[in-house]
Amino acid sequence: MTIKYELIKESSECKARLGKLHTPHGVIDTPIFMPVGTKATVKAMTPEELKDIGSQIILGNTYHLYLRPGHDLIKRAGGLHKFMNWDKPILTDSGGFQVFSLGDLRDITEKGVEFRSHIDGSKHFISPEKSIEIQNALGSDIAMAFDECPPYPADREYVKKSLERTTRWAKRCKDAHKNLNQSIFGIVQGGMYKDLREQSVKEITELDFPGYAVGGLSVGEPADIMYEVLDYTVPMLPKNKARYLMGVGSPDYLFEAVIRGIDMADCVLPTRIARNGTALTSHGRVVIKNAKYKDDFTSLDHECDCYTCRNYTRGYIRHLFKTNEILGLRLTTIHNLYFLLNLMENIREAIKDDRLLEYKEEFYKKYGYTK
Amino acid sequence: MTIKYELIKESSECKARLGKLHTPHGVIDTPIFMPVGTKATVKAMTPEELKDIGSQIILGNTYHLYLRPGHDLIKRAGGLHKFMNWDKPILTDSGGFQVFSLGDLRDITEKGVEFRSHIDGSKHFISPEKSIEIQNALGSDIAMAFDECPPYPADREYVKKSLERTTRWAKRCKDAHKNLNQSIFGIVQGGMYKDLREQSVKEITELDFPGYAVGGLSVGEPADIMYEVLDYTVPMLPKNKARYLMGVGSPDYLFEAVIRGIDMADCVLPTRIARNGTALTSHGRVVIKNAKYKDDFTSLDHECDCYTCRNYTRGYIRHLFKTNEILGLRLTTIHNLYFLLNLMENIREAIKDDRLLEYKEEFYKKYGYTK
Repeated sequence: MTIKYELIKESSECKARLGKLHTPHGVIDTPIFMPVGTKATVKAMTPEELKDIGSQIILGNTYHLYLRPGHDLIKRAGGLHKFMNWDKPILTDSGGFQVFSLGDLRDITEKGVEFRSHIDGSKHFISPEKSIEIQNALGSDIAMAFDECPPYPADREYVKKSLERTTRWAKRCKDAHKNLNQSIFGIVQGGMYKDLREQSVKEITELDFPGYAVGGLSVGEPADIMYEVLDYTVPMLPKNKARYLMGVGSPDYLFEAVIRGIDMADCVLPTRIARNGTALTSHGRVVIKNAKYKDDFTSLDHECDCYTCRNYTRGYIRHLFKTNEILGLRLTTIHNLYFLLNLMENIREAIKDDRLLEYKEEFYKKYGYTK
Repeated sequence: MTIKYELIKESSECKARLGKLHTPHGVIDTPIFMPVGTKATVKAMTPEELKDIGSQIILGNTYHLYLRPGHDLIKRAGGLHKFMNWDKPILTDSGGFQVFSLGDLRDITEKGVEFRSHIDGSKHFISPEKSIEIQNALGSDIAMAFDECPPYPADREYVKKSLERTTRWAKRCKDAHKNLNQSIFGIVQGGMYKDLREQSVKEITELDFPGYAVGGLSVGEPADIMYEVLDYTVPMLPKNKARYLMGVGSPDYLFEAVIRGIDMADCVLPTRIARNGTALTSHGRVVIKNAKYKDDFTSLDHECDCYTCRNYTRGYIRHLFKTNEILGLRLTTIHNLYFLLNLMENIREAIKDDRLLEYKEEFYKKYGYTK
């Protein structure tokens, strides 16, 4: 089946929207946050724990899975869902972003990208066709087109050439695609240039994908610039298709993206900072190793009812981090993911009740955001 | 309440016995294996997961908890049970074994042991009174007397002097004990000398503890010597009290100890080797990183129905270990603990049916033990 986006409601106050995304492995409520399971596991979590906290869809990283254990092995295991014991939807990225991030280790041509593995230095080549072949083998519900993501800042000429290549690559991805139980999302580029975003949207939407990502954001630009690009880019996208903002996971970014019409987002932030002992809470971040939490026998977040907050104290979690115990990062990971998934659920409720802007103000004030 | 051992049945074939241990936090079926939660957590596990696999009692380590987070903090948190969110029985060791293991970092006198922390080199002193004070604060159901554990080998004269000191220390422990909701187990020493074991049993049982450990074993001596010491020491112990063998957790040691009349055992072995990627299975050990498991999409142990074996393949778990993913060691830890707890349940059933020796033969053959 093909992914289908169903628009349920548009906010009367902003561009936020409520919807459902129909996928081969089930229906997802949007706007949604997607936990990242880079190497066929969301770090420190079981699939059951992910479901318990309300995860509806997770991400897999094509670049990492291609290198280890290899997409052929995952195919022999029956696909990524079966390999990792996750029966809900999966989205895979194209591998492009990771490959471009290798810097000196990669060489981009029209054909694709030659690169050296960050693990053992071995030579590899990923083209649009190869990216789709890998994603077909992984069997994700949503595959992403192989695009070129320009850095920030990048000059106009570079960005224009790059977005046009991204269009040619998107066509090649479509032509190479063979998995009928998987859909490809296109990716719009164009950097921080409005007319180039227009050009990219026009070219990519002509290829008629069931969903579109706004690419090239959250790559180091100031938040205001990201918001500005979203302000003019998202409204150019067709209303009857899902809109995905890649690499965004802090509460403010999620609010601002949803307010500008984004339906899906993902980020390693909640799981990564959890493993460093930082918790997202309704009153801002808690750095659990701080001495002031030593004798604090209250929960991480006093307003949270996740497994961690129902059963453990700050003092205990601090002890686990100070002694490098695995349970510590398990507990903060559960909490941080729950916090964001719960936030998105509240955001969906607020859209339904036409009070998203009010909810945002309440949240920002309590969290300690100054704007 | 005081710990009470209830003898249910004695085997007709050997010295094995079936019993129940009544503790302030519930009743335990014996013979039992106790998972080790050194620093107020059984590594990589939640309390719920421990219960799911059938854990009835766990261990805490006095030395480690004294250093981090400190017994005073745990007392302020409401005791070890509350601190770590475990509402079933807990046994704490005396800290003695860990302190003696510090080698050059410690100095033993009649008063107690002066030592330097393995973490920061700071100076500390643990006496029988201090060990009991710490264990009182932790609030374990079963506290262990502070004993001196001679190394193997040790000469007769040293062992005799040492066991006599252990007796004097056991009296001091009893005198210092103030927690009415906790019981102390005595520890019998005497090394590998039958007459010294007799002397120690006589002296320690005169103090009338509700349970006794056979100390000074599993310290590097050959298995045959351990079995021989158990052969003559266990029958000297009173039948109406629990008998505990410390630091034993391989399937053969558990079988042989139970056959000689032991009721309780603990060891870090199942959890430690799990984190290195070694699984205990009904057909022997599986070292999951081996290349031969790469494409093996069957379960770790084909006869096991634990969470890990019901849901994951060897190929997937191997991938998790090769990529250092936390879920890997979670899955092997669950499996290894389940394997031993399930083994003990089968052992209890076999005692009930008077077929323990037959069950042992079947198990050894399949597991690949040669004797």
